[in-house]
Amino acid sequence: LSSKLPDIGVSIFSQMTLLAQQTGALNLAQGFPDYDPPLALREALARHALAPGSHQYAPMPGLPRLRQAIAAQVGRLQTDAPTPDPDLEVTLTAGATEALYAVLAAVVRPGDEVLVLEPAYDLYGPAIRLQGGLPRYVRLPTPHFRPDWAAVRAAVSARTRLVIVNTPHNPSGAVFGAEDWDALAEVLAGTDALLLSDEVYEHLVFDGVPPRSARQHPALRARAFVLSSFGKTYHATGWKVGYCLAPPALTTELRRVHQFLTFAVSTPTQHALADVLEADPTDGHARGLASFYQAKRDEFAQLLAGSGWDLLPVPGGYFQLAGYGAFSRKNDLAFAEELAREWGVAVVPVSAFYHDGYDPGLVRFCFAKEPATLQAAAARLRRPG
Amino acid sequence: LSSKLPDIGVSIFSQMTLLAQQTGALNLAQGFPDYDPPLALREALARHALAPGSHQYAPMPGLPRLRQAIAAQVGRLQTDAPTPDPDLEVTLTAGATEALYAVLAAVVRPGDEVLVLEPAYDLYGPAIRLQGGLPRYVRLPTPHFRPDWAAVRAAVSARTRLVIVNTPHNPSGAVFGAEDWDALAEVLAGTDALLLSDEVYEHLVFDGVPPRSARQHPALRARAFVLSSFGKTYHATGWKVGYCLAPPALTTELRRVHQFLTFAVSTPTQHALADVLEADPTDGHARGLASFYQAKRDEFAQLLAGSGWDLLPVPGGYFQLAGYGAFSRKNDLAFAEELAREWGVAVVPVSAFYHDGYDPGLVRFCFAKEPATLQAAAARLRRPG
Ligand SMILES: CSCCC(=O)C(=O)O
Ligand SMILES: CSCCC(=O)C(=O)O
Repeated sequence: LSSKLPDIGVSIFSQMTLLAQQTGALNLAQGFPDYDPPLALREALARHALAPGSHQYAPMPGLPRLRQAIAAQVGRLQTDAPTPDPDLEVTLTAGATEALYAVLAAVVRPGDEVLVLEPAYDLYGPAIRLQGGLPRYVRLPTPHFRPDWAAVRAAVSARTRLVIVNTPHNPSGAVFGAEDWDALAEVLAGTDALLLSDEVYEHLVFDGVPPRSARQHPALRARAFVLSSFGKTYHATGWKVGYCLAPPALTTELRRVHQFLTFAVSTPTQHALADVLEADPTDGHARGLASFYQAKRDEFAQLLAGSGWDLLPVPGGYFQLAGYGAFSRKNDLAFAEELAREWGVAVVPVSAFYHDGYDPGLVRFCFAKEPATLQAAAARLRRPG
Repeated sequence: LSSKLPDIGVSIFSQMTLLAQQTGALNLAQGFPDYDPPLALREALARHALAPGSHQYAPMPGLPRLRQAIAAQVGRLQTDAPTPDPDLEVTLTAGATEALYAVLAAVVRPGDEVLVLEPAYDLYGPAIRLQGGLPRYVRLPTPHFRPDWAAVRAAVSARTRLVIVNTPHNPSGAVFGAEDWDALAEVLAGTDALLLSDEVYEHLVFDGVPPRSARQHPALRARAFVLSSFGKTYHATGWKVGYCLAPPALTTELRRVHQFLTFAVSTPTQHALADVLEADPTDGHARGLASFYQAKRDEFAQLLAGSGWDLLPVPGGYFQLAGYGAFSRKNDLAFAEELAREWGVAVVPVSAFYHDGYDPGLVRFCFAKEPATLQAAAARLRRPG
């Protein structure tokens, strides 16, 4: 049986979670919290699970009440952008993962080029290739991981169908500033290229910097698919609900594929999410995430201060990149294995985010963890050099 | 913006559900029950919604305990086939829809031919084309909709990568007998073609005929992806959980794509399904579905007896096909609109299941409805010719 993806094995996230289970290491690898979604959300799901009448197919684009609640919240949070039209611009998906795949399947034609800024989430490349598209990789400069826009411009061609950006960025936490959005808009001006803006960590922007979406840039909004994740926002990565905001013409293309990929998303889960959004008209939950996660970032960094770990700045997201030159000259995968087996902490080697295995000598810690977990991990990580 | 699927509009199922809502027609169109999943299942979901610790990513192929429960049940029900290996042969998906798409994305390469027996579920054709594949359509002979295997054989070529079958069949309810599986095995013998067997109505086989899966045919099992749907089996189409059984090498290919399509399925929902499967070691629920739905089939037919509707035999599934020549000479789409608007009953016109709009003069009723709904629908359908 010849494979369409012969070089694709089990993802690094699954591998490292498995290794953590096998070794008893603390799992700071795969990106998920070790705490639960808010009780009000869990209670809402329990209510809709028990209630009659909400167990059959949701409408293909998502429950109207959830689309309305999302649109209203986006309108409140992005005061300088038009409120999305819930019917024509909001589509619920089986996690942001489905949205990513659906956008690629909807717009990438054989031979189209797609720009990917590396390090990047491991699905972009294979999912592009499955459409017959050609990923074009541009490296983000270390250690700040903000795009070199001249390099991006040089990589754009007449065949560029789509540019993928991700802010706050996984794995680095880099956050686009207004000048990045402007530079991107300038690069795309005069081209037909579309934009896929993966903003699943949208609310996790630290140090008082206001989150900025591609939607808030008028020239970009018109060509952008913007992805969000209730999994990240509500500490519910296992619920698998995300959504895509896009102008009507783009949404039409997205839905053409979404209806065949999964058709619709869990009805009781959508009702539960609509309940909590409707009950939070001041967006307290979303607005509180930055300080919630900033405290975790700061606690983890403080716990490791002076330990020899070279902690990179983390402007957003829920990952800490760290250099380990004080401890080892191994490549990052070998060192990640040592960390799990001998230090008792599972991480993700950053080379897993590069298609060519480039190894910047960094590992990624997920700090979306209880204080006790961060403390236990830090105790293991502060071993005598 | 040029579309990859310019001819794809809103699916007939969504269209007809919308028309039912707009007109107040009883919705016997889109295939879903108007009753709820078993209370034990809803209670299980409520329990797992409230419980801490089961809200983050499930393992990519599905929760081990659910895969084990599925494998054990399949082993009990298909006594003449080996029990599937839960680790290597069972994959949970976001409904059977995701499984269908994932199989196509995993195995269909540009230029590959895929055989589709029409009438067929409307996603097959576009999803094949999105992979660069070429659907090859073979019509099922009316009125019994059992394959003409000589015609199938004639359509198989050296470029045939995949054959899609669906039994019990949507929309006709036709069920493969042992002789159909044998004929299919003979057609495929000596080819490399794979098989996608869409068995989402697997337990709904009537009149004492035992259900038979592609897995129960040794020569087919080795090349088959077999799809099942908890949505259909547990009256929970809105929960969006299905699964695929396939030999290890095929499962590897499926998972390579599944990890990028959706990654994993709702964790609390998987726990709930595992609970009810584990609590039902004699498979009473699955074994009881045939008589439950046969009673509905028979009630609906009796309610329409002598009314002028030409009811076709329904060996399985939950749809009733009906000729309407006694009432109208309109094409089926026009007549379906009349039925919703003037008679007060929404149906699906069967031409929607043909890529070329072939119109066999039939409409499809979903009889997965409460007796009161079937009675009300029949009262509307028994109007003076
Ligand atoms: C779907 S597993 C990957 C989760 C994640 O976003 C990450 O760890 O980067
Ligand atoms: C996903 S909507 C279609 C439901 C169904 O299986 C049908 O009506 O045929």
